Amino acid sequence: MSIFEVTIPRRRDALQLDLEDPLRPLRTQFAIPSGLIYLDGNSLGMLPKTAAARVAEVVTKEWGVDLIASWNSNSWFDLPRRVGDKIARLVGARPGELIATDTTSINLYKALSTAMSIATKDSAERRVIVSERSNFPTDLYIAEALCAERGFRLQLVAQEELAAALTKDVAVLMLTHVNYRTGFMHDMAAVTAAAHQAGALVVWDLAHSAGAVPIDLHDADADFAVGCGYKYLNGGPGAPAFVWVHPRYVNRFWQPLAGWWGHAAPFAFAPEYQPGDGIARYLCGTQSILGLAALECGVDSVLAADAFGGAMALRKKSLALSDWFIDLVVHRCSGFGLKLVTPLEHSHRGSHVSFSHPTGAYPIVQALISRKVIGDFRAGSPGGSGSESENIMRFGMTPLYLGFEEIWLAVEQLYQILDSAEWTAPQFSRKQAVT
Amino acid sequence: MSIFEVTIPRRRDALQLDLEDPLRPLRTQFAIPSGLIYLDGNSLGMLPKTAAARVAEVVTKEWGVDLIASWNSNSWFDLPRRVGDKIARLVGARPGELIATDTTSINLYKALSTAMSIATKDSAERRVIVSERSNFPTDLYIAEALCAERGFRLQLVAQEELAAALTKDVAVLMLTHVNYRTGFMHDMAAVTAAAHQAGALVVWDLAHSAGAVPIDLHDADADFAVGCGYKYLNGGPGAPAFVWVHPRYVNRFWQPLAGWWGHAAPFAFAPEYQPGDGIARYLCGTQSILGLAALECGVDSVLAADAFGGAMALRKKSLALSDWFIDLVVHRCSGFGLKLVTPLEHSHRGSHVSFSHPTGAYPIVQALISRKVIGDFRAGSPGGSGSESENIMRFGMTPLYLGFEEIWLAVEQLYQILDSAEWTAPQFSRKQAVT
Repeated sequence: MSIFEVTIPRRRDALQLDLEDPLRPLRTQFAIPSGLIYLDGNSLGMLPKTAAARVAEVVTKEWGVDLIASWNSNSWFDLPRRVGDKIARLVGARPGELIATDTTSINLYKALSTAMSIATKDSAERRVIVSERSNFPTDLYIAEALCAERGFRLQLVAQEELAAALTKDVAVLMLTHVNYRTGFMHDMAAVTAAAHQAGALVVWDLAHSAGAVPIDLHDADADFAVGCGYKYLNGGPGAPAFVWVHPRYVNRFWQPLAGWWGHAAPFAFAPEYQPGDGIARYLCGTQSILGLAALECGVDSVLAADAFGGAMALRKKSLALSDWFIDLVVHRCSGFGLKLVTPLEHSHRGSHVSFSHPTGAYPIVQALISRKVIGDFRAGSPGGSGSESENIMRFGMTPLYLGFEEIWLAVEQLYQILDSAEWTAPQFSRKQAVT
Repeated sequence: MSIFEVTIPRRRDALQLDLEDPLRPLRTQFAIPSGLIYLDGNSLGMLPKTAAARVAEVVTKEWGVDLIASWNSNSWFDLPRRVGDKIARLVGARPGELIATDTTSINLYKALSTAMSIATKDSAERRVIVSERSNFPTDLYIAEALCAERGFRLQLVAQEELAAALTKDVAVLMLTHVNYRTGFMHDMAAVTAAAHQAGALVVWDLAHSAGAVPIDLHDADADFAVGCGYKYLNGGPGAPAFVWVHPRYVNRFWQPLAGWWGHAAPFAFAPEYQPGDGIARYLCGTQSILGLAALECGVDSVLAADAFGGAMALRKKSLALSDWFIDLVVHRCSGFGLKLVTPLEHSHRGSHVSFSHPTGAYPIVQALISRKVIGDFRAGSPGGSGSESENIMRFGMTPLYLGFEEIWLAVEQLYQILDSAEWTAPQFSRKQAVT
């Protein structure tokens, strides 16, 4: 590890950092359980207080009283676009270009299959999709299924092999912006430029970056993007996901999940499909109104940062939190076998921090949870190389609601667990499938 | 129309019917707005009172307090199967055969594409999907897209031409059990047998029948089925849908939307897809937990009928309500141009009743809504033949919460609107897209 300037980080330093934190007022938006230190906002964002009231209103009034009229009177029909326009502001998309709908996996299916169609139409010999072996598995599964269906080949490489893999056979490069395990962040603009240089389209999965990392899809000249509503967007469990298509492609092809809500005239009930104009055609079936309502509250909780400097301020705090966390672990937990998996370089670090441990990743996380410090465990890939094969402990540094003192307290708990070897107790060993 | 035995149906007759209705206690499960006569449960079921409390609990406690631990501690991960097992009881499926997930359109994509793969594997020359031109449009759109993708042909015929259309080229017959406009109900067992006789598989859409009409998928020897959660199942706006696959097919093929939740080991995070055993492989991405929680309350509201005779009792009441409705309209509203579109034969009638009107279908529905009688309007298909081209008024006869007096009152309102020609007033004319 590198040399750090702060020599002995103390709790009073944390309190001072919290006092000086310009984003501190945003924390009051959330229902934070007493005594809980929640370092898992990268997996499931916390509950914005507004969401409870809003969902109750949708259930009891919009569904319960207004019933079917709500499609118009309560603008249910506009929700995917309205929420999409709000998410668009967080990822550098323009109004009308992005919709909130379905799941990340299904949106990836739509985006990737469209990208494959465009690439093949433009250049028939391009029949390869390149991705990272360490990409989030569901993305790889969706690509694998589409490749089998269309006679494409899915080529999985290590991150450092990506540039070399961009040969003239490649139709699409499919990447997750921030790696779900390591927290490694790609340079979206540079990677996109390299792919375009090689004649490939790029599909970005923003699941682990949207809401915590500044993203500018237009500035990066990205082609397609999908992302998740329940991580940094705080949309609630299983919140609708989102999909964006660059305007230069959006009207060129159908996406394959051609459902009524993506029709040019959804209420004409015509027997033939006529895709809607623009991103609307990426809608398919009827969406969860409860899910969209909660997601809107979550997105609003992120947009509230606009009054305090917006995405750049969130990023600054996220990096300060993760620097502080890494720094504390270095000072307090050296000699216990922890290894930092997340890049130290800010330009390649997302908003979570991961450590590996030779034997303790799972039980240490369990011991932390028993002390109300919530991180999570992710198993290494059996066939992976390097850090891909390592079991890791993952800690989300959510800038909207985390404070520096909480990080200090979390590392103190970690230190005590390691120093006492408490994590080796039988109750923390792995017994069953881990969620 | 046929001859009816009741000569002058009166309000006191309705009150007597309500008194004698064995299902009357089930009505108390629902939050029924005062003064509203809701004949649109076939489009969006009413709110079960339990759903408001249950959704609030999921939001404030399971999401807000328990957070990520809820995947295990609150059994979020089991919800699609748990709710699926409950729906299974309503459609003659067995435990573990049906899951609640995604949307009807997306589930149809999974089921239909699998059926196409099976049919083609078994007999390569079968490249036609047959459906009704009057089928619900989103079903036709999904089929159209899959046909284009796979080099199949979608053949749309009138209902009376179905038998003749089952030639040796046909891979799959795709039908909706109860027609969304006319309320015509197919004989599921007979149609399935005819399709099997012709060597075709059958995919049934139960959107307008599950929860209101007795269905026995195994008894009918059906191959695939999908259905909707927010109509007669009362799952709330945009509730998750469901999909069922006969066990004889379920492990034969991947469905194309291969996501993490359908993996054999979802938490192993392996880079290669290995489909789960049985219906689990029809899961894809992360599902709306709020949506599933509300849906479970809705399904429970239907299962509550088990204590009162179950599906047969619901069916008996549904037919009694629609007979009563038709009878009243015949007696009170003759001579105003209404024409019954729904079959009089019980064996071919679902749980909603539709009337056409030469010029008034839209404004009459609007005038009824202004008097708090909620039905809906469905436009005829411009290219349709016979009743396919007629604009209709649609009235759902939801047996769980409707009473005979409400039907009597609704028809009285209809009579007043027709007799006074109130519906011709400008405020009821069509101005915009209708939801």
